[in-house]
Amino acid sequence: MKLIADNLRITKLSIQNALAACDPKPVQQLMFQCEKKGIFAIDVNTGPLTRFPEKDMTFFIKAVESVTKLPLLIDTSNCVAMEAGLKAADNKVIINGFSLEPDKLETILPLAKKYDADIIGFLLYPNSMVPKDVSSRCEVALELFEQVEAAGITKEKLIIDPVVPPLAWEDGIFQAKAVLEVIRTLPELLGFKVKTIAGLSNLTTGAKNREKKNLVEQSYLAMLAAAGLDYIMMDVLNHKTLKAAKTADMLVKGSIFSWGMVS
Amino acid sequence: MKLIADNLRITKLSIQNALAACDPKPVQQLMFQCEKKGIFAIDVNTGPLTRFPEKDMTFFIKAVESVTKLPLLIDTSNCVAMEAGLKAADNKVIINGFSLEPDKLETILPLAKKYDADIIGFLLYPNSMVPKDVSSRCEVALELFEQVEAAGITKEKLIIDPVVPPLAWEDGIFQAKAVLEVIRTLPELLGFKVKTIAGLSNLTTGAKNREKKNLVEQSYLAMLAAAGLDYIMMDVLNHKTLKAAKTADMLVKGSIFSWGMVS
Repeated sequence: MKLIADNLRITKLSIQNALAACDPKPVQQLMFQCEKKGIFAIDVNTGPLTRFPEKDMTFFIKAVESVTKLPLLIDTSNCVAMEAGLKAADNKVIINGFSLEPDKLETILPLAKKYDADIIGFLLYPNSMVPKDVSSRCEVALELFEQVEAAGITKEKLIIDPVVPPLAWEDGIFQAKAVLEVIRTLPELLGFKVKTIAGLSNLTTGAKNREKKNLVEQSYLAMLAAAGLDYIMMDVLNHKTLKAAKTADMLVKGSIFSWGMVS
Repeated sequence: MKLIADNLRITKLSIQNALAACDPKPVQQLMFQCEKKGIFAIDVNTGPLTRFPEKDMTFFIKAVESVTKLPLLIDTSNCVAMEAGLKAADNKVIINGFSLEPDKLETILPLAKKYDADIIGFLLYPNSMVPKDVSSRCEVALELFEQVEAAGITKEKLIIDPVVPPLAWEDGIFQAKAVLEVIRTLPELLGFKVKTIAGLSNLTTGAKNREKKNLVEQSYLAMLAAAGLDYIMMDVLNHKTLKAAKTADMLVKGSIFSWGMVS
Protein backbone atom coordinates (compact mmCIF):
# COMPACT_ATOMS: atom_id res chain seq x y z
CA MET A 1 0.00 0.00 0.00
CA LYS A 2 1.71 3.17 -1.22
CA LEU A 3 1.14 6.51 0.44
CA ILE A 4 -0.16 9.55 -1.41
CA ALA A 5 -0.18 12.90 0.41
CA ASP A 6 -3.51 14.74 0.29
CA ASN A 7 -1.98 17.74 2.05
CA LEU A 8 -1.78 20.14 -0.90
CA ARG A 9 -5.33 21.46 -1.15
CA ILE A 10 -6.72 24.73 -2.45
CA THR A 11 -9.12 24.74 0.49
CA LYS A 12 -6.20 25.72 2.77
CA LEU A 13 -5.87 29.47 3.18
CA SER A 14 -2.07 29.34 2.93
CA ILE A 15 -2.35 27.68 -0.47
CA GLN A 16 -4.96 30.15 -1.71
CA ASN A 17 -2.69 33.00 -0.63
CA ALA A 18 0.31 31.40 -2.33
CA LEU A 19 -1.65 31.24 -5.57
CA ALA A 20 -2.91 34.83 -5.27
CA ALA A 21 0.63 36.09 -4.66
CA CYS A 22 2.22 33.74 -7.23
CA ASP A 23 4.53 32.72 -4.37
CA PRO A 24 5.69 29.09 -4.63
CA LYS A 25 7.30 28.98 -1.16
CA PRO A 26 4.31 27.76 0.91
CA VAL A 27 3.75 24.99 -1.65
CA GLN A 28 7.43 24.08 -1.64
CA GLN A 29 7.63 23.99 2.15
CA LEU A 30 4.62 21.70 2.31
CA MET A 31 6.22 19.42 -0.28
CA PHE A 32 9.46 19.22 1.73
CA GLN A 33 7.50 18.13 4.81
CA CYS A 34 5.49 15.54 2.91
CA GLU A 35 8.35 14.03 0.92
CA LYS A 36 10.28 13.29 4.12
CA LYS A 37 7.51 10.89 5.14
CA GLY A 38 8.43 8.31 2.53
CA ILE A 39 5.47 8.88 0.24
CA PHE A 40 4.89 7.59 -3.27
CA ALA A 41 3.10 10.60 -4.78
CA ILE A 42 1.39 13.93 -4.11
CA ASP A 43 -2.20 14.87 -4.86
CA VAL A 44 -2.33 18.37 -6.26
CA ASN A 45 -5.88 19.32 -5.31
CA THR A 46 -6.44 22.63 -7.01
CA GLY A 47 -10.21 22.63 -7.21
CA PRO A 48 -11.78 23.80 -10.48
CA LEU A 49 -9.62 26.95 -10.93
CA THR A 50 -12.44 28.58 -12.89
CA ARG A 51 -10.84 32.02 -13.34
CA PHE A 52 -7.42 31.24 -14.83
CA PRO A 53 -7.33 27.48 -15.18
CA GLU A 54 -4.19 27.26 -17.33
CA LYS A 55 -2.09 29.89 -15.57
CA ASP A 56 -3.07 28.78 -12.07
CA MET A 57 -2.59 25.04 -12.69
CA THR A 58 0.80 25.75 -14.27
CA PHE A 59 1.77 27.71 -11.15
CA PHE A 60 0.99 24.71 -8.93
CA ILE A 61 2.72 22.14 -11.13
CA LYS A 62 5.85 24.28 -11.45
CA ALA A 63 5.90 25.06 -7.71
CA VAL A 64 5.67 21.37 -6.81
CA GLU A 65 8.12 20.16 -9.45
CA SER A 66 10.68 22.75 -8.39
CA VAL A 67 11.28 20.65 -5.25
CA THR A 68 10.28 17.05 -6.01
CA LYS A 69 10.52 14.34 -8.63
CA LEU A 70 7.60 12.38 -7.12
CA PRO A 71 4.58 11.48 -9.26
CA LEU A 72 1.71 13.98 -9.14
CA LEU A 73 -2.02 13.34 -9.06
CA ILE A 74 -3.74 16.25 -10.79
CA ASP A 75 -6.95 16.66 -8.86
CA THR A 76 -9.41 18.95 -10.60
CA SER A 77 -12.79 18.55 -12.25
CA ASN A 78 -11.96 21.26 -14.81
CA CYS A 79 -10.75 19.67 -18.04
CA VAL A 80 -9.00 22.86 -19.15
CA ALA A 81 -7.01 22.99 -15.90
CA MET A 82 -6.36 19.25 -16.19
CA GLU A 83 -4.90 19.54 -19.67
CA ALA A 84 -2.80 22.53 -18.61
CA GLY A 85 -1.40 20.40 -15.78
CA LEU A 86 -0.64 17.51 -18.12
CA LYS A 87 1.18 19.88 -20.47
CA ALA A 88 3.11 21.61 -17.70
CA ALA A 89 4.22 18.49 -15.82
CA ASP A 90 7.58 16.81 -16.25
CA ASN A 91 7.05 14.33 -13.38
CA LYS A 92 4.89 11.24 -13.87
CA VAL A 93 1.21 12.25 -13.74
CA ILE A 94 -1.96 10.48 -12.66
CA ILE A 95 -5.27 12.04 -13.67
CA ASN A 96 -7.58 12.35 -10.62
CA GLY A 97 -10.04 11.55 -11.99
CA PHE A 98 -13.07 10.61 -14.05
CA SER A 99 -16.41 8.92 -13.50
CA LEU A 100 -19.45 7.88 -15.57
CA GLU A 101 -20.69 11.49 -15.59
CA PRO A 102 -21.10 12.24 -19.33
CA ASP A 103 -19.04 15.41 -19.06
CA LYS A 104 -16.11 13.54 -17.48
CA LEU A 105 -16.26 10.75 -20.06
CA GLU A 106 -16.15 13.30 -22.89
CA THR A 107 -13.51 15.68 -21.57
CA ILE A 108 -11.31 14.00 -18.95
CA LEU A 109 -11.05 10.37 -20.07
CA PRO A 110 -9.59 11.21 -23.53
CA LEU A 111 -6.75 13.10 -21.82
CA ALA A 112 -5.42 9.82 -20.40
CA LYS A 113 -5.01 8.51 -23.95
CA LYS A 114 -3.61 11.75 -25.31
CA TYR A 115 -1.00 12.13 -22.54
CA ASP A 116 -0.46 8.42 -21.84
CA ALA A 117 -1.30 9.00 -18.17
CA ASP A 118 -2.70 6.73 -15.50
CA ILE A 119 -6.26 7.72 -14.60
CA ILE A 120 -8.39 7.27 -11.50
CA GLY A 121 -11.99 6.18 -12.01
CA PHE A 122 -14.51 6.86 -9.26
CA LEU A 123 -17.25 4.34 -8.53
CA LEU A 124 -20.08 6.85 -8.94
CA TYR A 125 -23.24 6.81 -11.02
CA PRO A 126 -23.51 9.11 -14.06
CA ASN A 127 -25.45 11.55 -11.85
CA SER A 128 -22.55 11.56 -9.31
CA MET A 129 -24.52 9.62 -6.71
CA VAL A 130 -22.67 6.94 -4.72
CA PRO A 131 -23.76 3.34 -5.38
CA LYS A 132 -25.06 1.84 -2.15
CA ASP A 133 -23.85 -1.75 -2.02
CA VAL A 134 -21.12 -4.08 -3.26
CA SER A 135 -22.93 -5.28 -6.38
CA SER A 136 -23.90 -1.82 -7.61
CA ARG A 137 -20.32 -0.64 -7.07
CA CYS A 138 -19.10 -3.63 -9.07
CA GLU A 139 -21.50 -2.84 -11.91
CA VAL A 140 -20.13 0.69 -12.05
CA ALA A 141 -16.57 -0.68 -12.04
CA LEU A 142 -17.36 -2.88 -15.04
CA GLU A 143 -18.87 0.10 -16.86
CA LEU A 144 -15.78 2.25 -16.08
CA PHE A 145 -13.57 -0.54 -17.36
CA GLU A 146 -15.55 -0.76 -20.62
CA GLN A 147 -15.32 3.00 -21.09
CA VAL A 148 -11.54 2.86 -20.64
CA GLU A 149 -11.18 0.09 -23.19
CA ALA A 150 -13.53 1.91 -25.60
CA ALA A 151 -11.36 5.03 -25.30
CA GLY A 152 -8.37 2.97 -26.44
CA ILE A 153 -6.60 3.23 -23.09
CA THR A 154 -4.55 0.30 -21.79
CA LYS A 155 -6.50 -1.29 -18.92
CA GLU A 156 -3.43 -1.16 -16.64
CA LYS A 157 -3.71 2.65 -16.72
CA LEU A 158 -6.99 2.51 -14.76
CA ILE A 159 -6.88 2.95 -10.98
CA ILE A 160 -10.26 2.48 -9.30
CA ASP A 161 -11.40 4.63 -6.39
CA PRO A 162 -14.35 2.90 -4.69
CA VAL A 163 -15.22 6.15 -2.83
CA VAL A 164 -14.84 5.88 0.94
CA PRO A 165 -18.04 7.24 2.53
CA PRO A 166 -18.31 9.51 5.57
CA LEU A 167 -19.25 7.30 8.52
CA ALA A 168 -21.66 10.03 9.55
CA TRP A 169 -23.90 9.08 6.63
CA GLU A 170 -26.92 7.10 7.72
CA ASP A 171 -25.50 3.96 6.08
CA GLY A 172 -21.86 5.07 6.28
CA ILE A 173 -20.51 2.06 8.13
CA PHE A 174 -22.40 -0.31 5.84
CA GLN A 175 -20.86 1.45 2.84
CA ALA A 176 -17.39 1.48 4.40
CA LYS A 177 -17.64 -2.30 4.66
CA ALA A 178 -18.86 -2.48 1.06
CA VAL A 179 -15.75 -0.54 -0.03
CA LEU A 180 -13.51 -3.18 1.59
CA GLU A 181 -15.38 -5.98 -0.15
CA VAL A 182 -15.18 -4.19 -3.50
CA ILE A 183 -11.41 -3.73 -3.17
CA ARG A 184 -11.06 -7.44 -2.43
CA THR A 185 -13.37 -8.45 -5.30
CA LEU A 186 -12.33 -6.18 -8.17
CA PRO A 187 -9.28 -8.07 -9.49
CA GLU A 188 -11.30 -11.25 -9.95
CA LEU A 189 -14.29 -9.36 -11.35
CA LEU A 190 -12.25 -7.48 -13.95
CA GLY A 191 -9.96 -10.41 -14.66
CA PHE A 192 -6.69 -8.62 -13.97
CA LYS A 193 -4.91 -7.13 -10.99
CA VAL A 194 -6.60 -3.73 -11.30
CA LYS A 195 -5.09 -1.12 -8.99
CA THR A 196 -7.21 0.59 -6.34
CA ILE A 197 -6.96 3.87 -4.45
CA ALA A 198 -8.89 5.26 -1.48
CA GLY A 199 -9.05 8.62 0.23
CA LEU A 200 -9.01 8.27 4.00
CA SER A 201 -10.06 11.74 5.12
CA ASN A 202 -13.62 11.41 3.87
CA LEU A 203 -14.29 8.65 6.42
CA THR A 204 -14.33 10.89 9.47
CA THR A 205 -15.81 14.03 7.91
CA GLY A 206 -17.55 15.95 10.66
CA ALA A 207 -15.87 14.10 13.53
CA LYS A 208 -14.87 16.47 16.30
CA ASN A 209 -12.94 14.23 18.71
CA ARG A 210 -9.40 14.06 17.38
CA GLU A 211 -8.39 10.95 19.33
CA LYS A 212 -11.43 8.98 18.20
CA LYS A 213 -11.00 10.21 14.63
CA ASN A 214 -7.44 8.86 14.70
CA LEU A 215 -8.58 5.52 16.15
CA VAL A 216 -11.20 5.06 13.44
CA GLU A 217 -8.78 6.05 10.68
CA GLN A 218 -6.10 3.68 11.96
CA SER A 219 -8.52 0.79 12.19
CA TYR A 220 -9.97 1.35 8.73
CA LEU A 221 -6.48 1.79 7.27
CA ALA A 222 -5.53 -1.69 8.44
CA MET A 223 -8.73 -3.09 6.93
CA LEU A 224 -8.03 -1.35 3.60
CA ALA A 225 -4.48 -2.68 3.55
CA ALA A 226 -5.64 -6.23 4.31
CA ALA A 227 -8.26 -5.96 1.55
CA GLY A 228 -5.41 -5.36 -0.91
CA LEU A 229 -5.58 -1.60 -1.49
CA ASP A 230 -2.70 -0.29 -3.65
CA TYR A 231 -2.73 3.43 -2.87
CA ILE A 232 -3.94 5.27 0.21
CA MET A 233 -4.44 9.03 -0.05
CA MET A 234 -4.18 10.65 3.38
CA ASP A 235 -2.82 13.39 5.61
CA VAL A 236 0.76 12.16 5.77
CA LEU A 237 1.65 14.84 8.32
CA ASN A 238 -0.61 13.17 10.90
CA HIS A 239 2.08 11.27 12.74
CA LYS A 240 -0.21 8.64 14.26
CA THR A 241 -2.08 7.84 11.08
CA LEU A 242 1.19 7.67 9.16
CA LYS A 243 2.61 5.13 11.59
CA ALA A 244 -0.58 3.07 11.40
CA ALA A 245 -0.40 3.06 7.61
CA LYS A 246 3.21 1.90 7.62
CA THR A 247 2.51 -0.80 10.22
CA ALA A 248 -0.47 -2.13 8.27
CA ASP A 249 1.60 -2.15 5.12
CA MET A 250 4.36 -4.09 6.87
CA LEU A 251 1.84 -6.73 7.99
CA VAL A 252 0.42 -7.03 4.50
CA LYS A 253 3.70 -7.04 2.60
CA GLY A 254 5.13 -9.74 4.79
CA SER A 255 8.80 -8.97 5.03
CA ILE A 256 10.69 -10.31 8.02
CA PHE A 257 13.10 -7.43 7.68
CA SER A 258 10.30 -4.96 8.30
CA TRP A 259 9.20 -6.86 11.42
CA GLY A 260 12.77 -6.62 12.65
CA MET A 261 12.37 -2.87 12.37
CA VAL A 262 9.48 -2.75 14.82
CA SER A 263 10.59 -5.35 17.35
CA MET B 1 -15.93 -9.53 17.65
CA LYS B 2 -16.29 -10.36 21.32
CA LEU B 3 -13.49 -9.74 23.80
CA ILE B 4 -12.00 -12.48 25.96
CA ALA B 5 -9.54 -11.50 28.69
CA ASP B 6 -6.29 -13.48 28.65
CA ASN B 7 -5.16 -11.77 31.85
CA LEU B 8 -5.62 -14.65 34.28
CA ARG B 9 -2.50 -16.74 33.71
CA ILE B 10 -0.56 -19.08 35.97
CA THR B 11 2.63 -17.62 34.54
CA LYS B 12 2.03 -14.46 36.62
CA LEU B 13 3.77 -14.62 39.99
CA SER B 14 0.78 -13.04 41.79
CA ILE B 15 -1.44 -15.85 40.50
CA GLN B 16 1.04 -18.57 41.47
CA ASN B 17 1.23 -17.08 44.96
CA ALA B 18 -2.56 -16.88 45.22
CA LEU B 19 -2.77 -20.59 44.39
CA ALA B 20 -0.01 -21.52 46.84
CA ALA B 21 -1.73 -19.58 49.63
CA CYS B 22 -5.26 -20.66 48.61
CA ASP B 23 -6.05 -16.92 48.61
CA PRO B 24 -8.74 -15.99 46.08
CA LYS B 25 -8.29 -12.21 46.46
CA PRO B 26 -5.65 -11.58 43.74
CA VAL B 27 -7.78 -13.58 41.29
CA GLN B 28 -10.91 -11.71 42.31
CA GLN B 29 -9.25 -8.30 41.99
CA LEU B 30 -8.02 -9.17 38.51
CA MET B 31 -11.54 -10.26 37.56
CA PHE B 32 -13.04 -6.98 38.78
CA GLN B 33 -10.62 -5.03 36.61
CA CYS B 34 -11.27 -7.17 33.53
CA GLU B 35 -15.05 -7.30 33.81
CA LYS B 36 -15.25 -3.49 33.83
CA LYS B 37 -13.83 -3.46 30.30
CA GLY B 38 -16.98 -4.87 28.75
CA ILE B 39 -15.67 -8.33 27.99
CA PHE B 40 -17.56 -11.43 26.90
CA ALA B 41 -15.56 -14.09 28.77
CA ILE B 42 -12.43 -14.90 30.76
CA ASP B 43 -9.70 -17.36 29.87
CA VAL B 44 -8.64 -19.27 32.98
CA ASN B 45 -5.13 -20.23 31.96
CA THR B 46 -3.98 -22.55 34.70
CA GLY B 47 -1.29 -24.47 32.86
CA PRO B 48 -1.18 -28.26 33.40
CA LEU B 49 -1.51 -28.19 37.25
CA THR B 50 0.38 -31.47 37.44
CA ARG B 51 0.60 -31.73 41.25
CA PHE B 52 -3.01 -31.29 42.40
CA PRO B 53 -5.01 -30.90 39.19
CA GLU B 54 -8.47 -31.28 40.76
CA LYS B 55 -7.93 -29.24 43.90
CA ASP B 56 -6.04 -26.46 42.14
CA MET B 57 -8.44 -26.13 39.20
CA THR B 58 -11.38 -26.06 41.62
CA PHE B 59 -9.65 -23.24 43.51
CA PHE B 60 -9.41 -21.14 40.34
CA ILE B 61 -12.94 -21.80 39.16
CA LYS B 62 -14.43 -20.99 42.58
CA ALA B 63 -12.28 -17.87 42.95
CA VAL B 64 -13.39 -16.54 39.56
CA GLU B 65 -17.06 -17.50 39.94
CA SER B 66 -17.22 -15.83 43.35
CA VAL B 67 -17.10 -12.46 41.55
CA THR B 68 -18.42 -12.96 38.02
CA LYS B 69 -21.16 -14.64 36.01
CA LEU B 70 -19.18 -14.34 32.76
CA PRO B 71 -18.42 -17.45 30.67
CA LEU B 72 -15.08 -19.12 31.41
CA LEU B 73 -12.59 -20.66 29.02
CA ILE B 74 -10.80 -23.46 30.83
CA ASP B 75 -7.30 -23.35 29.44
CA THR B 76 -5.25 -26.41 30.37
CA SER B 77 -3.75 -29.33 28.50
CA ASN B 78 -4.34 -31.64 31.49
CA CYS B 79 -7.54 -33.62 31.01
CA VAL B 80 -7.88 -34.33 34.74
CA ALA B 81 -7.71 -30.61 35.55
CA MET B 82 -10.06 -29.90 32.64
CA GLU B 83 -12.70 -32.30 33.92
CA ALA B 84 -12.34 -30.93 37.45
CA GLY B 85 -13.01 -27.45 36.04
CA LEU B 86 -16.05 -28.62 34.11
CA LYS B 87 -17.42 -30.23 37.28
CA ALA B 88 -16.71 -27.24 39.48
CA ALA B 89 -18.08 -24.55 37.16
CA ASP B 90 -21.55 -23.07 37.38
CA ASN B 91 -20.91 -20.41 34.73
CA LYS B 92 -21.00 -21.28 31.04
CA VAL B 93 -17.76 -23.04 30.08
CA ILE B 94 -15.73 -23.25 26.88
CA ILE B 95 -13.04 -25.95 26.70
CA ASN B 96 -9.72 -24.41 25.57
CA GLY B 97 -8.94 -26.64 23.80
CA PHE B 98 -8.14 -29.67 21.66
CA SER B 99 -6.21 -30.45 18.50
CA LEU B 100 -5.47 -33.46 16.30
CA GLU B 101 -2.88 -34.68 18.81
CA PRO B 102 -4.05 -38.26 19.59
CA ASP B 103 -3.96 -37.60 23.33
CA LYS B 104 -6.22 -34.55 23.01
CA LEU B 105 -8.65 -36.39 20.75
CA GLU B 106 -8.93 -39.21 23.27
CA THR B 107 -9.10 -37.28 26.52
CA ILE B 108 -10.24 -33.69 25.91
CA LEU B 109 -12.68 -33.90 22.99
CA PRO B 110 -15.05 -36.36 24.74
CA LEU B 111 -15.42 -33.90 27.64
CA ALA B 112 -17.24 -31.48 25.31
CA LYS B 113 -19.88 -34.14 24.70
CA LYS B 114 -20.06 -35.24 28.33
CA TYR B 115 -20.45 -31.70 29.69
CA ASP B 116 -22.26 -30.20 26.67
CA ALA B 117 -19.60 -27.49 26.43
CA ASP B 118 -18.32 -25.42 23.52
CA ILE B 119 -14.79 -26.46 22.56
CA ILE B 120 -11.93 -24.68 20.85
CA GLY B 121 -10.04 -26.62 18.18
CA PHE B 122 -6.52 -25.51 17.26
CA LEU B 123 -5.33 -25.71 13.67
CA LEU B 124 -2.28 -27.83 14.51
CA TYR B 125 -0.97 -31.09 13.09
CA PRO B 126 -1.19 -34.26 15.23
CA ASN B 127 2.48 -33.65 16.18
CA SER B 128 1.58 -30.10 17.39
CA MET B 129 3.38 -28.41 14.51
CA VAL B 130 1.73 -25.37 12.94
CA PRO B 131 0.53 -25.83 9.33
CA LYS B 132 2.36 -23.37 7.11
CA ASP B 133 -0.14 -22.07 4.58
CA VAL B 134 -3.85 -21.48 4.00
CA SER B 135 -4.62 -24.80 2.37
CA SER B 136 -2.88 -26.94 4.99
CA ARG B 137 -4.69 -25.00 7.73
CA CYS B 138 -7.97 -25.66 5.91
CA GLU B 139 -7.21 -29.37 5.68
CA VAL B 140 -6.64 -29.49 9.43
CA ALA B 141 -9.90 -27.57 9.98
CA LEU B 142 -11.81 -30.17 7.96
CA GLU B 143 -10.19 -32.95 9.96
CA LEU B 144 -11.07 -31.24 13.27
CA PHE B 145 -14.63 -30.84 12.08
CA GLU B 146 -14.86 -34.53 11.20
CA GLN B 147 -13.50 -35.49 14.61
CA VAL B 148 -16.11 -33.30 16.30
CA GLU B 149 -18.92 -34.89 14.30
CA ALA B 150 -17.52 -38.39 14.95
CA ALA B 151 -17.53 -37.66 18.68
CA GLY B 152 -21.25 -36.90 18.48
CA ILE B 153 -20.79 -33.22 19.28
CA THR B 154 -23.03 -30.63 17.60
CA LYS B 155 -20.95 -28.77 15.02
CA GLU B 156 -22.03 -25.38 16.44
CA LYS B 157 -20.08 -26.25 19.60
CA LEU B 158 -16.79 -26.04 17.70
CA ILE B 159 -14.81 -22.79 17.78
CA ILE B 160 -11.73 -22.81 15.57
CA ASP B 161 -8.45 -21.19 16.61
CA PRO B 162 -6.26 -20.77 13.52
CA VAL B 163 -3.21 -20.13 15.74
CA VAL B 164 -1.77 -16.63 15.36
CA PRO B 165 2.01 -16.99 14.83
CA PRO B 166 4.75 -14.88 16.38
CA LEU B 167 5.85 -12.35 13.76
CA ALA B 168 9.41 -13.06 14.85
CA TRP B 169 9.18 -16.50 13.18
CA GLU B 170 11.00 -16.60 9.91
CA ASP B 171 7.70 -16.83 8.00
CA GLY B 172 5.65 -15.12 10.74
CA ILE B 173 4.13 -12.36 8.61
CA PHE B 174 3.30 -14.83 5.84
CA GLN B 175 1.51 -17.01 8.40
CA ALA B 176 -0.27 -14.05 9.99
CA LYS B 177 -1.72 -13.30 6.55
CA ALA B 178 -2.66 -16.96 6.13
CA VAL B 179 -4.57 -16.78 9.43
CA LEU B 180 -6.67 -13.88 8.10
CA GLU B 181 -7.46 -15.77 4.91
CA VAL B 182 -8.39 -18.90 6.87
CA ILE B 183 -10.80 -16.93 9.08
CA ARG B 184 -12.44 -15.50 5.97
CA THR B 185 -12.60 -18.87 4.22
CA LEU B 186 -13.70 -21.29 6.95
CA PRO B 187 -17.48 -20.67 6.95
CA GLU B 188 -17.71 -21.47 3.24
CA LEU B 189 -15.31 -24.41 3.53
CA LEU B 190 -17.22 -26.05 6.39
CA GLY B 191 -20.62 -25.08 5.04
CA PHE B 192 -21.85 -23.29 8.14
CA LYS B 193 -21.01 -20.13 10.04
CA VAL B 194 -18.32 -21.77 12.18
CA LYS B 195 -17.08 -19.51 14.97
CA THR B 196 -13.42 -18.48 15.16
CA ILE B 197 -11.15 -17.30 17.95
CA ALA B 198 -7.63 -15.86 17.95
CA GLY B 199 -5.10 -15.04 20.64
CA LEU B 200 -3.45 -11.69 20.01
CA SER B 201 -0.51 -11.81 22.41
CA ASN B 202 1.35 -14.49 20.48
CA LEU B 203 1.79 -12.10 17.53
CA THR B 204 4.36 -9.87 19.21
CA THR B 205 6.16 -12.46 21.34
CA GLY B 206 9.67 -11.22 21.91
CA ALA B 207 8.99 -7.62 20.84
CA LYS B 208 10.70 -5.17 23.16
CA ASN B 209 9.42 -1.80 21.96
CA ARG B 210 6.06 -1.26 23.65
CA GLU B 211 4.82 1.44 21.27
CA LYS B 212 5.59 -0.61 18.18
CA LYS B 213 4.11 -3.73 19.78
CA ASN B 214 0.88 -1.78 20.34
CA LEU B 215 0.88 -0.47 16.77
CA VAL B 216 1.27 -3.95 15.32
CA GLU B 217 -1.40 -5.40 17.61
CA GLN B 218 -3.84 -2.63 16.76
CA SER B 219 -3.31 -3.04 13.05
CA TYR B 220 -3.67 -6.82 13.12
CA LEU B 221 -6.74 -6.55 15.36
CA ALA B 222 -8.50 -4.49 12.69
CA MET B 223 -7.55 -7.04 10.05
CA LEU B 224 -8.87 -9.90 12.20
CA ALA B 225 -12.15 -8.05 12.78
CA ALA B 226 -12.58 -7.33 9.08
CA ALA B 227 -11.87 -10.99 8.27
CA GLY B 228 -14.90 -11.90 10.41
CA LEU B 229 -13.27 -13.15 13.63
CA ASP B 230 -15.84 -13.90 16.37
CA TYR B 231 -13.69 -13.89 19.53
CA ILE B 232 -10.43 -12.10 20.26
CA MET B 233 -8.44 -13.20 23.28
CA MET B 234 -6.20 -10.39 24.51
CA ASP B 235 -4.83 -8.30 27.33
CA VAL B 236 -7.98 -6.28 28.03
CA LEU B 237 -6.13 -4.11 30.56
CA ASN B 238 -3.98 -2.63 27.77
CA HIS B 239 -5.98 0.55 27.29
CA LYS B 240 -4.76 1.26 23.73
CA THR B 241 -5.31 -2.23 22.41
CA LEU B 242 -8.74 -2.36 24.04
CA LYS B 243 -9.78 0.87 22.30
CA ALA B 244 -8.49 -0.42 18.98
CA ALA B 245 -10.48 -3.64 19.40
CA LYS B 246 -13.68 -1.73 20.15
CA THR B 247 -13.14 0.65 17.25
CA ALA B 248 -12.52 -2.19 14.79
CA ASP B 249 -15.61 -3.94 16.09
CA MET B 250 -17.69 -0.81 15.60
CA LEU B 251 -16.51 -0.55 11.98
CA VAL B 252 -17.32 -4.19 11.34
CA LYS B 253 -20.67 -4.31 13.09
CA GLY B 254 -21.92 -1.29 11.24
CA SER B 255 -24.12 0.50 13.68
CA ILE B 256 -24.67 4.22 13.18
CA PHE B 257 -25.26 4.56 16.89
CA SER B 258 -21.76 3.35 17.62
CA TRP B 259 -20.31 5.86 15.16
CA GLY B 260 -22.20 8.56 16.99
CA MET B 261 -20.30 7.47 20.08
CA VAL B 262 -16.92 8.21 18.54
CA SER B 263 -17.74 11.38 16.58
